[in-house]
Amino acid sequence: PTPPSTNQRRMVVVRAEAINPEIRKNEDKVVDSVIVSELSKPLTAYCRCWRSGTFPLCDGGHVKHNKATGDNVGPLLLKKQ
Amino acid sequence: PTPPSTNQRRMVVVRAEAINPEIRKNEDKVVDSVIVSELSKPLTAYCRCWRSGTFPLCDGGHVKHNKATGDNVGPLLLKKQ
Ligand code: FES
Ligand code: FES
Repeated sequence: PTPPSTNQRRMVVVRAEAINPEIRKNEDKVVDSVIVSELSKPLTAYCRCWRSGTFPLCDGGHVKHNKATGDNVGPLLLKKQ
Repeated sequence: PTPPSTNQRRMVVVRAEAINPEIRKNEDKVVDSVIVSELSKPLTAYCRCWRSGTFPLCDGGHVKHNKATGDNVGPLLLKKQ
């Protein structure tokens, strides 16, 4: 018999459910554009958890989401160099 | 009595569940970095639905996710100008 896997840190079940609870639900599809030459800061974090109060920017809300659900999502970092 | 709202297009219930089913679940937090000066194409789409087979890039998988769940998520587009 196969021993239980030990290199899987957690088991999270994700069902076929929406992942965006409330951001711009009046839009068919929430797409944002960044003109990278217009970035003002050396580092800008963009949200991929759909929990940010400053969406499309990351406000750190992924931390609470990950803690509440066992998830492991985080932002996309745009770096000027 | 208040009439039912008519400007809400859909009602989607999102519970406190993980949104990333399988991408890099061995990592505590999935963060990706883009050095924007190294972008080769005029337009590059980055995934925010956690369903892409080419994550962190978007492969269009959000379309299937949105259809299956009633969600409205889409990518972040990085534009060189
Ligand atoms: S708040 Fe969503 S990724 Fe940080
Ligand atoms: S495949 Fe995830 S946003 Fe397009």
